[in-house]
Amino acid sequence: MQIWLAKCAGYCFGVKRAIKMALDARQETDRVYTLGPLIHNTQIVNQLRKKGIAAIEDSNQMVGEVVDIRSHGITRNQRQVLTRNRNKLIDATCPYVHKTHKIIADMVAAGYPILIFGDGNHPEVIGMLSYGDEETKVIFNDYQVTDSCHWQKLCLLSQTTQSIEDFTAIIGRLLPHCNELRAFNTICSSTSERQMAAIELARHCELMVIIGGKNSSNTKMLAKLCARITNTLHIETEDELVRDLFSGIQRIGLSAGASTPDEMIIRVYNKIKEIYGEGDAVTSIAKIPAFKEES
Amino acid sequence: MQIWLAKCAGYCFGVKRAIKMALDARQETDRVYTLGPLIHNTQIVNQLRKKGIAAIEDSNQMVGEVVDIRSHGITRNQRQVLTRNRNKLIDATCPYVHKTHKIIADMVAAGYPILIFGDGNHPEVIGMLSYGDEETKVIFNDYQVTDSCHWQKLCLLSQTTQSIEDFTAIIGRLLPHCNELRAFNTICSSTSERQMAAIELARHCELMVIIGGKNSSNTKMLAKLCARITNTLHIETEDELVRDLFSGIQRIGLSAGASTPDEMIIRVYNKIKEIYGEGDAVTSIAKIPAFKEES
Repeated sequence: MQIWLAKCAGYCFGVKRAIKMALDARQETDRVYTLGPLIHNTQIVNQLRKKGIAAIEDSNQMVGEVVDIRSHGITRNQRQVLTRNRNKLIDATCPYVHKTHKIIADMVAAGYPILIFGDGNHPEVIGMLSYGDEETKVIFNDYQVTDSCHWQKLCLLSQTTQSIEDFTAIIGRLLPHCNELRAFNTICSSTSERQMAAIELARHCELMVIIGGKNSSNTKMLAKLCARITNTLHIETEDELVRDLFSGIQRIGLSAGASTPDEMIIRVYNKIKEIYGEGDAVTSIAKIPAFKEES
Repeated sequence: MQIWLAKCAGYCFGVKRAIKMALDARQETDRVYTLGPLIHNTQIVNQLRKKGIAAIEDSNQMVGEVVDIRSHGITRNQRQVLTRNRNKLIDATCPYVHKTHKIIADMVAAGYPILIFGDGNHPEVIGMLSYGDEETKVIFNDYQVTDSCHWQKLCLLSQTTQSIEDFTAIIGRLLPHCNELRAFNTICSSTSERQMAAIELARHCELMVIIGGKNSSNTKMLAKLCARITNTLHIETEDELVRDLFSGIQRIGLSAGASTPDEMIIRVYNKIKEIYGEGDAVTSIAKIPAFKEES
């Protein structure tokens, strides 16, 4: 039996930065708040709460506090409320997300109707939408482009964690209905790299195990892409692994979303090894240190 | 046996306009020249020559003449030479092609590198290229996008007679290498409509006969699209039709490129009918008058 780890997996730059900024802020004050969970990983959010970094849901609740803005960003209105209520903002919005806010504001000013490709319920997309105008809309894979649709010009951009294939497919549906389609490829490079590495690995494995929050958009996307190629499991922790899942499997691939710490990847790796028993050959343990060097 | 004619087929607006402008000019002067053949249809070009409208290849040859600029357009340099040599220009450049020249000039001014999707040997694309700068390039289906390619911003537009599917496929190849991809859908609407009608018809026929110049880009594209679906013949005149081609065929579809006159479509139709013999049932003759009403 072999366990292989995808070349790029786990924490992205934006998530590492948001956690570091919250922990640094916590050094200087009694308590730090985040608007919504700092990252889409229940285990890490629980650890952070124990360290005095708590998530609350309503921006109106905070007055005169230290508030870490998570990597997904917040809405324009939430930012105004937090500022008006004299909170100190630690802005850990991922630079890739910040860029989408700027593009949307610029394109609204340039008179483009805007479509955002992404999940309309995700905080990142809700934040993006708030920088648009009444013509700014969210589209997803099931978006209906009817014969009567026509845009003289149209701006399209993507939630940072979508797949480039799906983004391209949407462009293919929209292009016949546009004179000009101005597409901004706002999928973050670490998302693309993580996806490409997982897809490549999935082609060589009988089972892919994707580790990350069940509510994490980029983790769900990894699982979806791998499931198109091979059997795929999406788990949050090693506790979800049972012996039956691995029956007859000879090669397992591991990947993890942007909110998954290395520690969790190693715990999953160790659990799989334990299930197979020490007697089995685990030939690709070397992949873990290779990843560790990168992280 | 049935013969069906595609809902949209034959002469497009731009070609009709170019022929009319040349004929009108000929009413007022002894001779009219075109730079290159007025349209990609040998039979019509021969007829025009007999009427005193002759094609020549070199813009330097003409001094003080009346020159009809064909619907494909000409290069910026050719226009300058013709004007400098005191020729009277009748500009029948198709408005869709004119629009591409304007987009290219505007996008060069806005600092975008430009890729033109099309056939680099076609006069329309050679004309388009002349409005670009040293960074303006032509790409086609075999264009190599390597891992090292990257554009901060890129403008992409299409020869007016390409297919939207192929244009979209190129976008899919380029998008992962761009931050911003500004795509102008410059495929002319009558090209799209003609293509869609031919594809729809091809799905219901055992043989498609596509009529138009062997050097006509839009006709070749029609034949290529239909050949993906069913057996397809590309002919210029009815003389290319022989009985063997129709052996065992029960339903034949007809379509024609933008440079093909109605007269030629009817001649092909009559020849097929003749091959099958008057005794055979020709159920869809009604399609021809339906088309005639449109043309």
